[in-house]
Amino acid sequence: MPLETRADGRADDELRPVRFTRGFQAHPAGSVLVEFGGTKVLCAASVTTGVPRWRKGSGLGWLTAEYAMLPSATHERSDRESVKGRVGGRTHEISRLIGRSLRSCVDLAALGENTIAVDCDVLQADGGTRTAAITGAYVALSDAVSWLRAAGALSDPQPLSCQIAAVSVGVVGGRVRLDLPYEEDSRAEVDMNVVATDGGTLVEIQGTAEGATFARSTLDTMLDSALAGIAELARLQREALAQPYPGRDGTA
Amino acid sequence: MPLETRADGRADDELRPVRFTRGFQAHPAGSVLVEFGGTKVLCAASVTTGVPRWRKGSGLGWLTAEYAMLPSATHERSDRESVKGRVGGRTHEISRLIGRSLRSCVDLAALGENTIAVDCDVLQADGGTRTAAITGAYVALSDAVSWLRAAGALSDPQPLSCQIAAVSVGVVGGRVRLDLPYEEDSRAEVDMNVVATDGGTLVEIQGTAEGATFARSTLDTMLDSALAGIAELARLQREALAQPYPGRDGTA
Amino acid sequence: MPLETRADGRADDELRPVRFTRGFQAHPAGSVLVEFGGTKVLCAASVTTGVPRWRKGSGLGWLTAEYAMLPSATHERSDRESVKGRVGGRTHEISRLIGRSLRSCVDLAALGENTIAVDCDVLQADGGTRTAAITGAYVALSDAVSWLRAAGALSDPQPLSCQIAAVSVGVVGGRVRLDLPYEEDSRAEVDMNVVATDGGTLVEIQGTAEGATFARSTLDTMLDSALAGIAELARLQREALAQPYPGRDGTA
Amino acid sequence: MPLETRADGRADDELRPVRFTRGFQAHPAGSVLVEFGGTKVLCAASVTTGVPRWRKGSGLGWLTAEYAMLPSATHERSDRESVKGRVGGRTHEISRLIGRSLRSCVDLAALGENTIAVDCDVLQADGGTRTAAITGAYVALSDAVSWLRAAGALSDPQPLSCQIAAVSVGVVGGRVRLDLPYEEDSRAEVDMNVVATDGGTLVEIQGTAEGATFARSTLDTMLDSALAGIAELARLQREALAQPYPGRDGTA
Amino acid sequence: MPLETRADGRADDELRPVRFTRGFQAHPAGSVLVEFGGTKVLCAASVTTGVPRWRKGSGLGWLTAEYAMLPSATHERSDRESVKGRVGGRTHEISRLIGRSLRSCVDLAALGENTIAVDCDVLQADGGTRTAAITGAYVALSDAVSWLRAAGALSDPQPLSCQIAAVSVGVVGGRVRLDLPYEEDSRAEVDMNVVATDGGTLVEIQGTAEGATFARSTLDTMLDSALAGIAELARLQREALAQPYPGRDGTA
Amino acid sequence: MPLETRADGRADDELRPVRFTRGFQAHPAGSVLVEFGGTKVLCAASVTTGVPRWRKGSGLGWLTAEYAMLPSATHERSDRESVKGRVGGRTHEISRLIGRSLRSCVDLAALGENTIAVDCDVLQADGGTRTAAITGAYVALSDAVSWLRAAGALSDPQPLSCQIAAVSVGVVGGRVRLDLPYEEDSRAEVDMNVVATDGGTLVEIQGTAEGATFARSTLDTMLDSALAGIAELARLQREALAQPYPGRDGTA
Repeated sequence: MPLETRADGRADDELRPVRFTRGFQAHPAGSVLVEFGGTKVLCAASVTTGVPRWRKGSGLGWLTAEYAMLPSATHERSDRESVKGRVGGRTHEISRLIGRSLRSCVDLAALGENTIAVDCDVLQADGGTRTAAITGAYVALSDAVSWLRAAGALSDPQPLSCQIAAVSVGVVGGRVRLDLPYEEDSRAEVDMNVVATDGGTLVEIQGTAEGATFARSTLDTMLDSALAGIAELARLQREALAQPYPGRDGTA
Repeated sequence: MPLETRADGRADDELRPVRFTRGFQAHPAGSVLVEFGGTKVLCAASVTTGVPRWRKGSGLGWLTAEYAMLPSATHERSDRESVKGRVGGRTHEISRLIGRSLRSCVDLAALGENTIAVDCDVLQADGGTRTAAITGAYVALSDAVSWLRAAGALSDPQPLSCQIAAVSVGVVGGRVRLDLPYEEDSRAEVDMNVVATDGGTLVEIQGTAEGATFARSTLDTMLDSALAGIAELARLQREALAQPYPGRDGTA
Repeated sequence: MPLETRADGRADDELRPVRFTRGFQAHPAGSVLVEFGGTKVLCAASVTTGVPRWRKGSGLGWLTAEYAMLPSATHERSDRESVKGRVGGRTHEISRLIGRSLRSCVDLAALGENTIAVDCDVLQADGGTRTAAITGAYVALSDAVSWLRAAGALSDPQPLSCQIAAVSVGVVGGRVRLDLPYEEDSRAEVDMNVVATDGGTLVEIQGTAEGATFARSTLDTMLDSALAGIAELARLQREALAQPYPGRDGTA
Repeated sequence: MPLETRADGRADDELRPVRFTRGFQAHPAGSVLVEFGGTKVLCAASVTTGVPRWRKGSGLGWLTAEYAMLPSATHERSDRESVKGRVGGRTHEISRLIGRSLRSCVDLAALGENTIAVDCDVLQADGGTRTAAITGAYVALSDAVSWLRAAGALSDPQPLSCQIAAVSVGVVGGRVRLDLPYEEDSRAEVDMNVVATDGGTLVEIQGTAEGATFARSTLDTMLDSALAGIAELARLQREALAQPYPGRDGTA
Repeated sequence: MPLETRADGRADDELRPVRFTRGFQAHPAGSVLVEFGGTKVLCAASVTTGVPRWRKGSGLGWLTAEYAMLPSATHERSDRESVKGRVGGRTHEISRLIGRSLRSCVDLAALGENTIAVDCDVLQADGGTRTAAITGAYVALSDAVSWLRAAGALSDPQPLSCQIAAVSVGVVGGRVRLDLPYEEDSRAEVDMNVVATDGGTLVEIQGTAEGATFARSTLDTMLDSALAGIAELARLQREALAQPYPGRDGTA
Repeated sequence: MPLETRADGRADDELRPVRFTRGFQAHPAGSVLVEFGGTKVLCAASVTTGVPRWRKGSGLGWLTAEYAMLPSATHERSDRESVKGRVGGRTHEISRLIGRSLRSCVDLAALGENTIAVDCDVLQADGGTRTAAITGAYVALSDAVSWLRAAGALSDPQPLSCQIAAVSVGVVGGRVRLDLPYEEDSRAEVDMNVVATDGGTLVEIQGTAEGATFARSTLDTMLDSALAGIAELARLQREALAQPYPGRDGTA
């Protein structure tokens, strides 16, 4: 088979350039603009007192997440869900995935009856918006936790048991490729999203055949690639979080 | 570790009793009541002429699926989504999963510009409703395809390239168990749904850690169990489909 | 006038075959699958503690009903109301009718501040779905009341003052006919639904001319036929309820 | 039994004062403010070209009706359905009743593919709003038909085959009473609405027991009273329509 | 430029005939039918105990307003917002404008924790519905305040600090004209609504160029005309309010 | 009166620092991040072929606008309108204002039957979001027009007749101040938004008293300040547009 190069020149198992801009917004406790190549997601972690009704009196906190896409984020302008009056199935799915993934690393008891609301708004979409959102949201969450710690609001100073990151992997033209941009994603035979910890254990795995089906050995190769990518993303998260937070509303 | 027996006496890798009642309803082209133990799902495949707007003129057919739960199906009565005025995120997710799974085995070109609408209505829920729904829906789809064939509406007499079945698998109390009933599902540490073909290739895999995370080796063990279960389900589908369809509206 | 026979061979004043399958579902306090010929309605009576807000503190219980139709229940697949995002006028009307009819036989004070939610989901529609629903729902309600009695939750051991049953009657091709199937209903000149007690007193009467109008003497003839039919339905209800309830979730 | 007089001094079989103010609004083809005592309903019949999609190409016209209540019409201000975002079940029921009732007197073929939209907006509610609405709507419809006739838009000059009027009747304190105001309606044991033609044939009959049930002989007495009332209402309609229409937008 | 006369013969700075019919409805504390020429708006001010949640415990009252249009009010019948299931942007805007305008003259502390709900329902539209609504609503509000005063519910006997009235003004065919009817409004180059007090101070000003833009000097001329018109409207309000209120539900 | 300084050290008639970042997003024809101090709005102008149904066949183009706020944009996180299922009144109002304002400078005939959709999404809110949105949207619109011109899609090479900019002005603590940040806006006695052209003619003026009312002379002073601010904003727009557009999807 003649060697097919990826359109952006990357190796099959290489991530796109990743960038975290912390403190992009002034108001939330944690705000991060995350970029996976051309995909840009604004992740904000806001703290509100109280928990949903079904959780009141439990002494436990809560973490919820909402994902959305600006109409102008996509190649063709997409309709605004608020105007359509209903949140679509895809949006629902991704919001639930982000919330579940982040909850797996937080000790909710340490928060007391407070809620962390994580908003992931896609400013520009070029494939992998959900995995970028999870990876960026972890950073925003970590900054929000620092803010709570500084405010003396935590019963345990480190409620985060591990880091969470995510990446997509797929089969494109018969080759297993990491971190698919839109151009590859739209023609992939298999598409998989993996969420894992910095320690390499799994949080969520969602693999889908598009049209064809895939062998179990392909699943194994995809997992190898994804877990290596996630280890690299976790390293980049640590690197970003090692810098001081660049200022926040009402703080020095 | 002392041997923990499953509440219903099954071995860890054993399916619940499975039953397909074909022709439960008179009107749809294919109607099947599928039972996985106490889980009962009514699956109907209805044929309508025409395709959604975005597909018109393509010459291709379409297959869509809707999943829903009767309010009286659950241990505690649940609210009716039509009365709430919106379909919840979980319902959306499962409807999309069923549709994607079934489309992976159908040659939509052979249908012409017709739509098969698959309805999976849960009459009684005891865990694994989505996997029972997919497994039953394949049987209803197969009967609808036979109906189309008899009506001379297919351009290719066998548009189904393989069988599709699904099963849940999870980690409960540290043990990998197949086909979880509600009592196990509600306390599982890991919960995974696998959709595969009768040939053992994968269509969809969705694994979720509930609270904790899971090792890759656990994933492998779960997949072993799930794929064995799916092979058995495919055998039971063939057995059911080998019987004549018990009558249909307007047919002898 | 040459004798027109009914398509299913019945006499003009004859009911279709009626069947009650109690205990069809495991979770509700009362669950009955009722069949009037090809019309099949799953009726469930679920008990929940508490009453709607406007009734709190009254010491009285409440009974509410919801009617719905599976998309696959009709000759042509119908749209799902949850997906459309609104409950249609016809659905609303019938839900209200069922609730009103059943409330007329229950002493709500005997329930304490508990609610009985009656769900009538049409699995297959062949005319007369609302009258079958009422007739079956009475049986489910009766079983739910027995369950409450066994649980010691009733302040009066017999809160049901009478039986409630319902039947349709219409004028088809100039002849007054009882219990119309879809084929007759769709071409009836007059269509009437009658709800009455086993003692023959009226609970609800809804008669509608379709296109033409009808004489008062026709109304009288229709009422004669309907009340005779209801007396027969009440006898069949008693016969069904004379059997032991075939098992319920968490009971022997 | 000591003689109980009605609060407003009427005999049991007497209508409240009835008034029709034609031409209350300038824009619709027919506009009538109808009053049954303290109940005031603004009825408008507007003509629009075209018919609903499902009726296109049939050559037949259509008549549709919508009923609504101003928030300020009731004793206690009621919520606005547009603000709540959904039309309630009661509103739906009454809208459908009005439409069905009026369609029974119109030859829709004579209208060509045009639609008459009848709006009945309750300005003040004091019982019997639906029966006043039907009775007034007939007058507005009649004026709209005259307007169409004058415009040369009718294929048959008299598409109305009869008059339609409606009245409520009930059992209050054991006595059968006609045309119930709110004060009687709210405590009636039986409540019935009858729609009939000027010739005394029935169009619609809806009788409901509130709490108790009622004997067939009571139904007969109620019908006697209602049909006499409707005959009187039809006479008042004719009297009103005998006057010239007091001017209309863009007409002399 | 040859003198262009207004279609209804008015001078450019002349109001249409204005009429207030107080007590049009029996139930609200204040009910006024206001007419600005062919524009007729039914304004009702209803008193309810309690305030919205966000205001509870403040000791302050609240005033809210809702504006709506009957479908039959316009030249072409318009769709009913309750049926469409959402309130349109224009309706929202006007409701908010009316509420803000009236709140500027009320001392909400004097009401205690009570709410005045002002409903402005347009029965007939011929331009200027929002300004007629505000002008009429002030009169209804004033009557509701009198009712509260008579009921001893006010902590300050005169919670209204001034009168509020409103008028439209525009540039039509190059001429500044007051109180535009539909025929002028639909072709105006500039359209402005002014809300002011009887003392001539401004409450709200909303000016919009339609297609073209307008000079600041034009704004000045429009304001001159509008403020003169509002002074006249305030005089007519006083005149109307000087009469006794013509009876109210449950009052002599 | 002792001199009160503004919290950010500005003179009363001074704008906040204004910044336009063109090309912030890759996909829309024009994309600008506009900042008025701490207020950041992402403005995108997307071109789509075709026009709304009511405009088809007219040969004219259309311009529509939607405004929204990210939940994380405000001091306290706000609810997401897509999740609430309805667009609020304030959002509607501002969307309509932006659309009207921009349409006043475009010759829609020059666009042919194409639509420009302008999206203004507030990433961070600190007062004046609607005026920043209009001012930024003009720049995005101008870039979209250049894109259309380069694509040869315009029948007239310069369809923009003037520039459009907007600013807020208010009375705070008795002083007229320009371009209010949230801290001033929330306690302003009068709040006004002015939209005007670079030539100083008016497009829209919306002034609102908050609680008190305001004299006409105050209106004059506010207008002086606003028009001077708009002249400066127009200069900054020209300065920004004088630079080359920094790259766009699929263009050099």
